[in-house]
Amino acid sequence: LSEDELVAAIASLASGSPRVLVGIGDDAAVWQPSRSNRSVITTDALIEGVHFSRTWMSLEDVGWRAMAANASDIAAMGARGVLATVALGLPEGFGPDAVLELYRGLTACARATSCAVAGGDLTRAPVLTIAITVVGEVRATHLKLRSGARPGDALAVTGPLGASRAGLLHARGDVRLSVPLARAATAAHCRPAPRMREGRFLAASRSVHAMMDCSDGLSTDLSRLLAASGVGARIEAVPVDPCAREAAEQLGEDPAAFALAGGEDYELLVAVAPRAFGHLSARLRAHAGRALLRVGTVQADAGLSMVKDGRPEPVFRSGWDHFSLGAN
Amino acid sequence: LSEDELVAAIASLASGSPRVLVGIGDDAAVWQPSRSNRSVITTDALIEGVHFSRTWMSLEDVGWRAMAANASDIAAMGARGVLATVALGLPEGFGPDAVLELYRGLTACARATSCAVAGGDLTRAPVLTIAITVVGEVRATHLKLRSGARPGDALAVTGPLGASRAGLLHARGDVRLSVPLARAATAAHCRPAPRMREGRFLAASRSVHAMMDCSDGLSTDLSRLLAASGVGARIEAVPVDPCAREAAEQLGEDPAAFALAGGEDYELLVAVAPRAFGHLSARLRAHAGRALLRVGTVQADAGLSMVKDGRPEPVFRSGWDHFSLGAN
Repeated sequence: LSEDELVAAIASLASGSPRVLVGIGDDAAVWQPSRSNRSVITTDALIEGVHFSRTWMSLEDVGWRAMAANASDIAAMGARGVLATVALGLPEGFGPDAVLELYRGLTACARATSCAVAGGDLTRAPVLTIAITVVGEVRATHLKLRSGARPGDALAVTGPLGASRAGLLHARGDVRLSVPLARAATAAHCRPAPRMREGRFLAASRSVHAMMDCSDGLSTDLSRLLAASGVGARIEAVPVDPCAREAAEQLGEDPAAFALAGGEDYELLVAVAPRAFGHLSARLRAHAGRALLRVGTVQADAGLSMVKDGRPEPVFRSGWDHFSLGAN
Repeated sequence: LSEDELVAAIASLASGSPRVLVGIGDDAAVWQPSRSNRSVITTDALIEGVHFSRTWMSLEDVGWRAMAANASDIAAMGARGVLATVALGLPEGFGPDAVLELYRGLTACARATSCAVAGGDLTRAPVLTIAITVVGEVRATHLKLRSGARPGDALAVTGPLGASRAGLLHARGDVRLSVPLARAATAAHCRPAPRMREGRFLAASRSVHAMMDCSDGLSTDLSRLLAASGVGARIEAVPVDPCAREAAEQLGEDPAAFALAGGEDYELLVAVAPRAFGHLSARLRAHAGRALLRVGTVQADAGLSMVKDGRPEPVFRSGWDHFSLGAN
């Protein structure tokens, strides 16, 4: 395969979209933005040895996860996916077959999140490097930022936390999960499902005051949401995934602390008007098959605390740091 | 500086734009696309040791050049810049001051090309890695693709070729240019000026049938334009930059061949209706200070040849290959 033939093979994997007028192959891709919506854009790079290892992930998994990390940021704005661009850095010996395997996972996740892969770049790099940018669209009135949380709001997530971290530890051999949990944890780590449907549903509710995705660990991400909103919070309960519970127990760690520091769970974190919480959660369950899991309450005073044995204790950010694990 | 403080410092360097409603700091950036235009998007990654060396480029230069490479693709569509996102991979020991120096060059080029830096990602990487995505806008009737060249069209570029390659060879010590040429070649390599003004002007002309940027070397880029248009061409003259001429002479190479293989010149390559060529070139000179330099003629038969001593000889693609130098 010549380079131009490889690009043609990639283009045939990237299913088109009526919105994309010119896809892979020109200087830039062209699309027609919706006239009535706002556009959103996010970018995230995954670096081999920092964000993933090919030792325990297939290239299809790596491609899926790189796309999922970006799509999750689009979901967190309440937006739907439109298109993606992919800049790939390929190490020595990484041939066309490997590129296409990576693209199979990437385009599978792109289809699942309604993003057309519209353009990209191929270059050499010392390690496998995947920088993806996703564009989405959202109605102006549905847009959800991090900065809208108000004192009294209920804080909640769209699913239990810590499964991806448990999957990573299991893959590395740091814990040994029992069979059904091992499978679930591996799937959570290798094939995370961005909460697109949940994001758009929650975005349509005026009772949702703030939303973000929970990719760096709840303690870090919640701290960011609170700082952006100029408020504090009390954590009352941490919804711990069963995989995370078993992993924490094997490590002799507190399961709640393990899940708080999790990272890469890609659940959505929302601040919701308290009176609307129960009804919204029930409607979300009916719409998307998952209820909201309550985490705590927004408070006027800055700072993040957690109720332990009836007493509030300060919580420190403990999730992934961008400079160590790089998720955004 | 904590990581969040570094992001705040980056955000203050990235001048805002009234079009960008939410910039750096949320899950995604938000903008209002123009209702009457089409949007274009391009992505390009620059990898240390592949595309640049910090030995002979300042970090400000590296940042400028990374942004320029992307903006040039936007110019090649006939579009204007709107916004950019930047994913940075930082090697060990690359501190906040270095990040901000890189961003100073990057945002200077962004301002010069009317792109607001609206979002990004910071992570660790084995070498300095800069993946930029730029969004632009263009009227539907002004959009210029690679595929519109017709037999008989005049082929032309917006400036002489080979200066950037001469600057690279000079920086590496492979040639030793005389003083005024050395300065010009270094500037061409380190601070290339994307032809935004020229691109928009040429895009407004119905006589321009195809356009692309000339970043991989004229022989490679012209081959791509011809393939996309289903035509061939005869090269009649290669406009060689004086820096390239001196470098080629020192290396004992044919100056035209040196410039043909150039790469990273970031001039625009156009196919123009032959009857309109002289008038369009004069108007471009009046508008942007540079005339079109004629390169050759589009022919119905496939293949690329060059007239040498009155006889056509076949030309083979000799520019940067994405897998060796990665420009797009």
